[in-house]
This record gives sequence, C-alpha cells and structure tokens, in this order.
Amino acid sequence: MNAEIIAVGTELLLGDILNTNAQYLSQKLAQLGFTVHFQSVVGDNPQRLAQLAQQAKERSEVVIYSGGLGPTADDLTKETVAQIYGDPLQFDVAQFEKIQDFFHACGKPMSENNRKQAMVPLYGETLENNNGTAPGMLFRQDGRVAILLPGPPKELIPMFEGEVLPILQKMQKNVLVSRVLRVYGIGESVLEEMVAPLLEGQNPTAALYAKTAEVVVRITAKAETTEQAAEMCDKTAKEFYRIVGDCIYAEGEQLLEETVVKLLAEKNLQLSTAESCTGGLLSQRITSIAGSSKVFECGVCSYANTVKEKLLGVPADVLEQFGAVSPQTAKAMAQGSLRLSGADIAVGITGIAGPDGETPEKPVGLVYIAAANKEKVWVHRMVMANRTREVVRFAASQKALDLVRRIAMEFEIKDCDCFEK
Amino acid sequence: MNAEIIAVGTELLLGDILNTNAQYLSQKLAQLGFTVHFQSVVGDNPQRLAQLAQQAKERSEVVIYSGGLGPTADDLTKETVAQIYGDPLQFDVAQFEKIQDFFHACGKPMSENNRKQAMVPLYGETLENNNGTAPGMLFRQDGRVAILLPGPPKELIPMFEGEVLPILQKMQKNVLVSRVLRVYGIGESVLEEMVAPLLEGQNPTAALYAKTAEVVVRITAKAETTEQAAEMCDKTAKEFYRIVGDCIYAEGEQLLEETVVKLLAEKNLQLSTAESCTGGLLSQRITSIAGSSKVFECGVCSYANTVKEKLLGVPADVLEQFGAVSPQTAKAMAQGSLRLSGADIAVGITGIAGPDGETPEKPVGLVYIAAANKEKVWVHRMVMANRTREVVRFAASQKALDLVRRIAMEFEIKDCDCFEK
Repeated sequence: MNAEIIAVGTELLLGDILNTNAQYLSQKLAQLGFTVHFQSVVGDNPQRLAQLAQQAKERSEVVIYSGGLGPTADDLTKETVAQIYGDPLQFDVAQFEKIQDFFHACGKPMSENNRKQAMVPLYGETLENNNGTAPGMLFRQDGRVAILLPGPPKELIPMFEGEVLPILQKMQKNVLVSRVLRVYGIGESVLEEMVAPLLEGQNPTAALYAKTAEVVVRITAKAETTEQAAEMCDKTAKEFYRIVGDCIYAEGEQLLEETVVKLLAEKNLQLSTAESCTGGLLSQRITSIAGSSKVFECGVCSYANTVKEKLLGVPADVLEQFGAVSPQTAKAMAQGSLRLSGADIAVGITGIAGPDGETPEKPVGLVYIAAANKEKVWVHRMVMANRTREVVRFAASQKALDLVRRIAMEFEIKDCDCFEK
Repeated sequence: MNAEIIAVGTELLLGDILNTNAQYLSQKLAQLGFTVHFQSVVGDNPQRLAQLAQQAKERSEVVIYSGGLGPTADDLTKETVAQIYGDPLQFDVAQFEKIQDFFHACGKPMSENNRKQAMVPLYGETLENNNGTAPGMLFRQDGRVAILLPGPPKELIPMFEGEVLPILQKMQKNVLVSRVLRVYGIGESVLEEMVAPLLEGQNPTAALYAKTAEVVVRITAKAETTEQAAEMCDKTAKEFYRIVGDCIYAEGEQLLEETVVKLLAEKNLQLSTAESCTGGLLSQRITSIAGSSKVFECGVCSYANTVKEKLLGVPADVLEQFGAVSPQTAKAMAQGSLRLSGADIAVGITGIAGPDGETPEKPVGLVYIAAANKEKVWVHRMVMANRTREVVRFAASQKALDLVRRIAMEFEIKDCDCFEK
C-alpha cells in the first residue's frame, strides 16, 4: 500500500525547525509495510496546500499530514483537506468541553479562536489528543484515507502510537513485527560478511545500519498475526545471537550507557572513571541515565598531568618515560580511579582527540582505554584516522562502556593487553 | 524569487536518515531573500522524480536538488533533471581525471561506474566538489535554474557555500546580510518586551528564536550592496547591544562553551570543575572545544558524598547539616575544586536532575551552581519545574559557563549570593 507524508508549516520552509516528524512517520510506515513515495513540506497557504493535497489523494492510498491544526487563522490543514475528501466539518460540543477542560487544567485562559479546534468531521473520525488542544482527524473517500496529526512531536507521537497505529494495522492484510539488535565491537562490513545469508531473506528481512561506533540490525517479519510474525523474528534473531554472540549488547532503543547502568545495578557493582581526552563525556553519558547515582561513584577529568599524578596517583616516572598518552598511563589511571573511589570497576582513558597535539609516534585519533577490576587491568589501543574530535571522543567512550559491560558480565575480552595485579 | 528544495533518496523515505539538508538549504535561501514554497523528498525512481522535477520547474524559478549524484545505477538525479532542462550530458576528460586523482589520493581502487560521474552538462555548469567524487551541476532553461548538489552534508555544505552562494546572490537584485547575536540570561518573553520596537522593523528585520537555555537574535538587512546591508545590520545590532548589554555572549555560531574557552585562553586563566548532578556534562562541553587543554585543569564528578568529602574537601558537617543539594555544598565544591586544581576559576554544581530523588523541600529541577575565584564565591539557585533530566542538566551547565564568563570578564553578576573569602 502506498503512503505519503505532508508537513504543513512555514517555519519548516524557513528552516527554523527540522522536520523530524517526517523521519518518525516514515520509519513507522515502513515498519507497517507501507511504501512511502513522497514526503513534502508546504507552507500555511490554502491554494498550495489544496493543490498538493489533491495530488497526494490521487497518487497515494494513505496521506499523513502533520501541523496546521492550531487555533489561529493560518492553521488551515483541517479545512483544506476536509474539502478535498468531501467531508463537511461540524461543531462538536463534547470536543469543545474537552478543550475548555484542558485550558482549565493548565490554569490558562481560553481564547475565542479555540472554538475552531472543536470542528470535527461529519463522516470521518476524530483522534484524541491527550497532550494538547488540537484533536487529530481522519477523512476517507473512495478508499483513500487522510490522517491529520498535530505538529509538535510530543503530541504527534503519542497520537500516532495510540490512535493511528491500530487503524493502519487494520488496513494491512498482514502484520509487521520488527526487532532491533544493537551490536558493538564488529564493524559493518565484517558483520555483513558474517551474517550474509541472513541478509538475503525476504521474510523476515534483516538489514544492517551503521551508526557511530556501533551497528544496528533490524529484523522485520510479515505474517497474518502478531504472534506468527514475532515468532519468525525470534527465529532469525536467534541466528544472529548464534553468530554475533556477546557483541549484541541490547535490543530496541536501549543505548550502551543504559545497558551498562542497568547491568551494574543488577549486579550491585560500582563504577568510577578517569578521563583525559574524553573530558567527562563518559561520566556524562553514564549519568545521563536516571538512577545512575546507584552505580556511579566518581569521575575525574585529568587534563593536566599534575592532576593525573596528584589525584589518580599516576607515577611521575610513568608520565615522564611513556608520556600522558600511553598504555601505561591509561592503566595507572584506571587503577588510580579504582583506589580513589573504592568502586568495583574503573576506567581510564587517555588519547589525542585532535585536531592538534599529535607527534610523529602519536597521531591524532590514538586513544588508550583501560578498564580494571580488583584482579586485573585490560588496556585497549584504538587508532581512528581522519575522524573528527567528536567521533574520536564518542568512540573511545563507547569502547570504555563495552569493556565495563564485558567485565561485569565476565565475558571474553579481546583486543586488549591484560595484566594481573 | 521563488525556490524549492528536492531531496532524492529512498533512505529518506524509509526514515533511515533525517533530512537536515532541507533545513540547511531553507535557512540559506531565506537569508538570501528567496521564498521557499515547497520541500519534497522523492525516492530513486526515474518516473516519480521526472514528474516532480517537471512540476518544480513550472512553479519555481530556482530548484535545489540534493542527493542521487553517486556512481551507482540508482543514482539518476543528473540524467533526469538534465532532460527536463533540455541539456545533454557529455563525457568530460578533465572531470574524469579529477575523479581518478581523488581515488588515488584515498588509496582506493576506482570502479568503472565512476565514469558516470564525469558526465557534465553541455550548456550548464559543473560545480567543484572538493570533498567527494560527485561534482555538482547547474542547468538553466527559460530563466529557470536547477542546482544539483551531492547528498552527504559534508559535501553539500562546502559546495553550497563556495559555489552556489555567489550564483544565487547574483540572481537577487538586492543583497541580504544577516547577523546573529546569542543571548544568555534573559528569557524569550522578557527579551521580546525589552526589544519590542526593534522586532517591528521591516528592513532590517530582527527575530528572536528560543533555544534550550538561550535565545538567538537574527538581524537581516536587504540593500543594493553587501556593505550597505552590513551597515544596516550593524546599526540594529548596536541597539541590541545597548539594550541587552553583556547578556549577548557571542555572535554567529559560536556556542557558550567555545566563547568561554576562547576567553579563558585570551586572559590566560585556568578553569576547574566539580560536578554532581551534571555528571561531567560541563567538563565534556568545555573539552569538546579544540584547544581546551590550555585552559581546563581538572574536573571531578562527585556523585557519592564520600567523594565530595575526600576529593573536594566538602566538610562532613556541611553535607550532614544542609545536605548534598544545598548552596553550602555547591560553594564548598567550587572552593574545593579551586584548591585541588590551583586553577583561577572553579565551578561547583549540585542538584536534582530527576526524575527521582526529590524531597518535599528539594524538588526535581532544583540545582545550585557556585563559581569561585581566589577572592569570592557566587552561588546561584535554579529551579526548573517540569523539565526533563536532559534539559535540567544542560541548563545548569549553561548557567555555570555564563558565571565563568562573567567572572573572567569582570562583569556584574546578578541572581547570586556572593561571599568574600
């Protein structure tokens, strides 16, 4: 089934805001098995909107609109699209009372033009908005459907998930179920070779998406029921787990920092960090997760060598003999952090994030990442040529998080020198 | 003059990537005085692309395309649009050699299909790509212009700035010059009242944009020459400086962390940080700026109270009597960081970022931010109700950066308790 997406709003055409709704809706429609042929943005202009809406109705079975449902005079998506799908609007008392209640709950006065938002389709459907005053709309004519959603993502997303998803699912004969596996530690091209036969499947399909310092696998199955599709995904996912093993760190939207914080909490383990080139990025990522205070003890950003010595106890002769960017310093930083905090696991990161600071032996992008528990220290050497400061720092923090995960899970740790204490 | 933007690529229609090019191009076109009526996304399908390109040519004087210029068979923007603007393509030896050189420099083998990228317009123009192999294209017919740019932003942006901007400027009778002022410390609505008469001007125009924990002012003037327009902007900017004063922290794209790092380097001052609820976000923002190692000494993330005591020397009785989230603790953290690092300025942040951890007296969103130099300590109390953990943390780090800026500049510091040492 064909679908298209139309965003209405002059602020998009001026570039004041980014059209994240189009990406969100495209992803959802793809997951539901709809083929999206066009995304468009049009301003708050009735002629141009009507022209586009007419064209969209002719070429697409489902058209999803976002924006232009507000109370002001230039919000005219509803009026324009209603006309094209031949549905007169009528004033709805219940809807009007709901809007009044919303304003009352916020303690804000309601202006007269909010009456406009209580106009609803006679033949179509009204979609509940629990996060704002503008209800959504659905119009149908000649087997064609238009769905109108409010522009703000915090209203659009819940309305899509709650009201629109079941309607779209019913339109498809088959149900689509997706499953996402998150992989750290194997590059996209190597992974592609490892799982090549799985990527050729037609149902379920499996696709790889390279992200910064990780790869995401999406498995999608089509079947008559959700249970059947889930079972098909499950079978393919099992194959991925068999081949990729413990490099799959989580499923769905769960990032590596969240995985690590949850894991440490489960295992009742404490973490501390000592960062040089990442400058607090690692501790910031960990503490961005609610509840991290239970597992995170202390972080030190030791940009200056004196701080590495004084706070972390990195021996002066290590710094002098091997330099601040060396496996020895990374190791001493992790061990120093462990001593300082009394945590169960500690990380030390030192490197050259660039763009300056390189020497002939130590290029930009060279980073040493050490992770220690009470028995051992592992040190990893990472070289990232031609990467920005941002990417070098992110990739280093990602590796550090994965080392913590592996230590906490007692998984095998490769690509590291290991020292007994 | 009317313009429209067309992005070509199935990955956009699947929602795999976000269409940031459309926002970038819209902003640039608006600044140049073009009116953008449509943005569209179409897949790698020749019929649908041709249909849209034909329609765009009829309704818009300038059409800017992004994507679909690559070497593979499904990259067909160039071939499709060339036909619509009646321009035959021809093989260009010099362009082909340039592509060969590019591959040679990367040490990668060149595949045969890269020949396709050396096909250039007979009547139109070829736009240099210094960051990739696909040259840009310009086609003209009947006073209509199509400009084709490569999809990756790191190729599109330099090509737009270097090659396209001068062409578009020449098409406009008037020149547009913009100037951006960045404001911290005054909310959007208060600022709006303060500068109301300036926002009513038609030429130059001035508009406010609320961002997270700051407001951006864009002044745009239209004139016959760049000098005249710049002078007009200058006059309005002076008015803003007169009214808003030292709350304007920088111009253009320079963020607060970059402003602070540059300022500290200029003044030869050293900074250190002690963070609790921001967990390294502040040190991460500072060290994200290249060259920050010259001004940043050391950061401590003291999530645990023992760390606040042991590393920062926050007295146990302060923690006990007033709690970890208190002005007294923030003050002792800043002072402790200053002692520990020997820096000139130090910051201490403690608060409740949420969603948990609140008490009846200390709600989620309560943060104390202290900044100290060798003579004084300032402590600011911030309460942010109904904000996410992310926003609370960012706003706290933003306030801390502004305090550092004010101390370094010896500006007046309001909304703070000040203690002499």
